[in-house]
Amino acid sequence: MDKGRLEAFSDGVLAVAITLLVLDLHLDAADGSIPHQLAEHWPSYAAYVVSFLVIGVIWINHHSLLSRIARVDRVLLFQNLFLLLFVTTMPFTTATLAEHVGASDADARWAVLLYGLSNIGMAVGFTAMFARMVRHDLLVEPVDAAVGRRAIRRFGLGTLAYPAATVVGLIWPPLILVAIGGLALYYAFEQTPTGDTPTARTP
Amino acid sequence: MDKGRLEAFSDGVLAVAITLLVLDLHLDAADGSIPHQLAEHWPSYAAYVVSFLVIGVIWINHHSLLSRIARVDRVLLFQNLFLLLFVTTMPFTTATLAEHVGASDADARWAVLLYGLSNIGMAVGFTAMFARMVRHDLLVEPVDAAVGRRAIRRFGLGTLAYPAATVVGLIWPPLILVAIGGLALYYAFEQTPTGDTPTARTP
Amino acid sequence: MDKGRLEAFSDGVLAVAITLLVLDLHLDAADGSIPHQLAEHWPSYAAYVVSFLVIGVIWINHHSLLSRIARVDRVLLFQNLFLLLFVTTMPFTTATLAEHVGASDADARWAVLLYGLSNIGMAVGFTAMFARMVRHDLLVEPVDAAVGRRAIRRFGLGTLAYPAATVVGLIWPPLILVAIGGLALYYAFEQTPTGDTPTARTP
Amino acid sequence: MDKGRLEAFSDGVLAVAITLLVLDLHLDAADGSIPHQLAEHWPSYAAYVVSFLVIGVIWINHHSLLSRIARVDRVLLFQNLFLLLFVTTMPFTTATLAEHVGASDADARWAVLLYGLSNIGMAVGFTAMFARMVRHDLLVEPVDAAVGRRAIRRFGLGTLAYPAATVVGLIWPPLILVAIGGLALYYAFEQTPTGDTPTARTP
Repeated sequence: MDKGRLEAFSDGVLAVAITLLVLDLHLDAADGSIPHQLAEHWPSYAAYVVSFLVIGVIWINHHSLLSRIARVDRVLLFQNLFLLLFVTTMPFTTATLAEHVGASDADARWAVLLYGLSNIGMAVGFTAMFARMVRHDLLVEPVDAAVGRRAIRRFGLGTLAYPAATVVGLIWPPLILVAIGGLALYYAFEQTPTGDTPTARTP
Repeated sequence: MDKGRLEAFSDGVLAVAITLLVLDLHLDAADGSIPHQLAEHWPSYAAYVVSFLVIGVIWINHHSLLSRIARVDRVLLFQNLFLLLFVTTMPFTTATLAEHVGASDADARWAVLLYGLSNIGMAVGFTAMFARMVRHDLLVEPVDAAVGRRAIRRFGLGTLAYPAATVVGLIWPPLILVAIGGLALYYAFEQTPTGDTPTARTP
Repeated sequence: MDKGRLEAFSDGVLAVAITLLVLDLHLDAADGSIPHQLAEHWPSYAAYVVSFLVIGVIWINHHSLLSRIARVDRVLLFQNLFLLLFVTTMPFTTATLAEHVGASDADARWAVLLYGLSNIGMAVGFTAMFARMVRHDLLVEPVDAAVGRRAIRRFGLGTLAYPAATVVGLIWPPLILVAIGGLALYYAFEQTPTGDTPTARTP
Repeated sequence: MDKGRLEAFSDGVLAVAITLLVLDLHLDAADGSIPHQLAEHWPSYAAYVVSFLVIGVIWINHHSLLSRIARVDRVLLFQNLFLLLFVTTMPFTTATLAEHVGASDADARWAVLLYGLSNIGMAVGFTAMFARMVRHDLLVEPVDAAVGRRAIRRFGLGTLAYPAATVVGLIWPPLILVAIGGLALYYAFEQTPTGDTPTARTP
């Protein structure tokens, strides 16, 4: 099966989801002066930047992961749909978080949980795709079995950071933005763990 | 005519439609606590997952169908537009279903009917494309006439499952989600019937 | 300049615009039963189908036009932006038309005028692109000067059908949907006038 | 790393952002007759055209910039995300500007500042990408070090036009639309400064 359309469809969903985040930004003349609203709605802007970064980094790493794939099977297509299902929830969970994160009540914690679930779902989807690629020999350059197992374990351990970030947010809600933003920056510079990305291969 | 842009445009419409489903998910602080709203609006979340799966599986099978095509004619472009017309109604019929499916009144049945029509329209569009490809020799590897007729018949019979799922939903509305979700899972693993997908062919 | 990204960007804008049309379809439990609302809001559904067809046919013909191009210059990129500017107004002018077309008052005629302008703008953009391609030798297979002039004249005359459809709608508003829908069907089967599309050329 | 997906994702985000601008155009039967509303809401239409032009020109120049690139590194991917972050704010800052630009009060000036920031952010992102490409030898045809330094300086000076346009808007708000629209037209015809775009190179 052709990986070109898997990339095209994923790029489309990621591009739409990252751009729909903006629909949660709006100022309403009835709510007071612009500087007053900007100050009051700071969580909307902070959540916008963090979620933009999260989806952007997902795109970079999705791109990097698929550049090593030689072929695609049906299970991988479903794992990819599972990943995209959680990506598309981001405009919803980001808006919910932005509305409640400023308070420290029960709803703020529920909003943290929903936002955490979006991120945990994406991490699980990513790990499942990575494991499938390594175990079922879908890679351009096959990896040694022991190296593969270690790589999957390291990758899987990494995903524990998302539940941890969620727990931190349950303690004090605004910290979820710091923790998830920090993880996005970390994964932006940390390569997926089987070596360097092969050199450019235009499709 | 070039099949590359047919794929690109279809991927775009499918990616936008699948992502717009999220616009129906929202929590409103005025409607009570978050857990209360999540519990009350469960049909929105169930319908979101089922419709995401339906469009995702349409994408997988659209992709699989087109990978066997050697050339595209104008009639096929229109059949594809017909298919996409019903795909783009999904955010509307999903939202309508989510609002009414919890009740068992007349409007719930109308909502089932609209949602069923979206799915029936997609099935009809798909079958028409498949029949056109087989009958007008648009395939990479031509199929024997008798094999082709049997394949079209089998494919056409399959589409009767969508009116059947709609009838089930008219009896008890929530069952439409189970039936349509089940069909999506079935078509996810059932290949289109003329043999294996040819090996990857990057466009 | 590369025509691949011109196609990709145009496909993206066309795919988003055609899918955003659905945002004008919605039922509101407060407005009465579903069958009552479907009957009352019939112009929304009729306008949805007509505008979907219009953008779909624009896509088919855009695709057909560009398949004959050998190279792209900056002026053509701007003509394409001009075309897309009017394409993106379609969700707005379609929603306005749907709201007013049922009445026969002054606002219905203003709505017809706005919807007509979207269509006239697209026709002008299309004709300008076609003329540029023929006159500035951007085609894969150059056409004879006299043939080119005749083709541009025929194409240009065709665009007069859009102001005519608008005038018809000013007389009785619902006719604009019939006239524009009819034109879309006509252009769906009428090739652009310099001969057959060259055979498939995967990018 | 593959520049094909960088282009595909960027085209997707630019196409969605340019099309979402239309969501700010709407007429409401409760607000008076259509001609009355069109006259009263002229800033929405002016801002729509200017922002459409700005994003369209960004697309043209992004396309032109990337056509000279031989390879992509992680820093460039981040600079591109930074550019896209400001592109996706355009539907928000355009809507805010449209609502307030007609008045000459403090909020109109805040709206000018937000709209200016969107444009300044895009100019900074663009300049950073250009400097990275020249300095880190990512170009198809390397440029002489002295030529490269002069090109980056000229490019960087150009971006000062955006803060200048913002200051002009702070004096009299509607002028921001004239100034930013004028800059878009200027950059539409001014090539990026290291020579002609190489001839078409289909990916």
